[in-house]
Amino acid sequence: MCIAVVTGGPIPDAAAVIASGAETLYCADSGLDHLISWGLKPDLFVGDMDSVSDEGRAFLERYDIPRKLYSSDKDMTDTDLVLSLCPPGSEVILICSLTGRIDHVVTNLDLLIRYKEAGVEITATDGVTDVIPVIGGNGDPGSVRLSGIEHPEELAVSILPFACDMAEGVTTKGLHYELDNATLLAASSYSVSNYPEDGIDLIEVGVLRGRLLVTLTKRV
Amino acid sequence: MCIAVVTGGPIPDAAAVIASGAETLYCADSGLDHLISWGLKPDLFVGDMDSVSDEGRAFLERYDIPRKLYSSDKDMTDTDLVLSLCPPGSEVILICSLTGRIDHVVTNLDLLIRYKEAGVEITATDGVTDVIPVIGGNGDPGSVRLSGIEHPEELAVSILPFACDMAEGVTTKGLHYELDNATLLAASSYSVSNYPEDGIDLIEVGVLRGRLLVTLTKRV
Repeated sequence: MCIAVVTGGPIPDAAAVIASGAETLYCADSGLDHLISWGLKPDLFVGDMDSVSDEGRAFLERYDIPRKLYSSDKDMTDTDLVLSLCPPGSEVILICSLTGRIDHVVTNLDLLIRYKEAGVEITATDGVTDVIPVIGGNGDPGSVRLSGIEHPEELAVSILPFACDMAEGVTTKGLHYELDNATLLAASSYSVSNYPEDGIDLIEVGVLRGRLLVTLTKRV
Repeated sequence: MCIAVVTGGPIPDAAAVIASGAETLYCADSGLDHLISWGLKPDLFVGDMDSVSDEGRAFLERYDIPRKLYSSDKDMTDTDLVLSLCPPGSEVILICSLTGRIDHVVTNLDLLIRYKEAGVEITATDGVTDVIPVIGGNGDPGSVRLSGIEHPEELAVSILPFACDMAEGVTTKGLHYELDNATLLAASSYSVSNYPEDGIDLIEVGVLRGRLLVTLTKRV
């Protein structure tokens, strides 16, 4: 099952095509407003209704959208609540803001890590930048293989240790600055703004221990 | 010595007043363009010149701004290079983008952690949101005391474990949802969007082990 989860915050309209291609469409609170502006209807609305617009509220009524409502006095963010409804083994595209309030953005990245570790095949995008979690466990390495890259010469690729002190045994293929069994400390600026080797349409990133976020965006 | 370091990426003009109040003003590459638009001149330009505008280059020449130039083929970001020039014990305000390219933003947050651990009294702001690192070590707790808050009713406060698996012994004072010796897992959405207790103008956050980012921004 492929589920797109759309959240609130600033999301470029470029994400509309991704949302429209999903088998199932969930939204978290004011993510509904994005869907309405993109001409799409969610299969499920989840949230505390504290940020959705009046138009959004009316839309939920008019189309009788299934909804799960929560008190705003809760411990989890709306996005966390929606993701908790996505079963392990499901494929989830989290269409979220990567340029909005920094505490929300960092939390969304944290959720990427947590749900990936819980067995959800999750990635995030705002339609401009993709973020892919790669997790290495105890003797259980993690890796990601990104094939069919169409415009490698336009791509910036960063490999960020995240939600851990360090990532160990980091190996890449297809990038200009290759990493071979490298240790990346979280609190450093190493491994930012790498890019595909000339003409390469396949990138692979592996990690033995620790957590990585691989970000892909347009090089400027 | 109070140094403001201005980086590239989208930074609201609200940050200009902070930059103009600094004793010493450094900029990282296209951070120069922000300074020019704010009518300010840096004491030092640092970078690889790969993102600064033609106007910026001309400005450097015209005013004979001191500069440290690096090859763009380097391991550290421009921001990291500037911060490496700020001595332990100095007070640094990193005026950086918190809403730009997510890999750059995450890296700037990582740098906050690293330089704080190296003894620099560093905080980050984009003029709208402040980010304060709080570090707990081995038997050496960290804390921050934010006093004189003028409009507590407008403030959203988040406490984010960052660049670590978890933060332990987290205690807060002055917030609506208090934490008392709490353990915060990095990969969760707990402790996001807290806010000051009614009428409180003082917030304190302490941590025994692990790394936190405390973010303060306008509640919406």
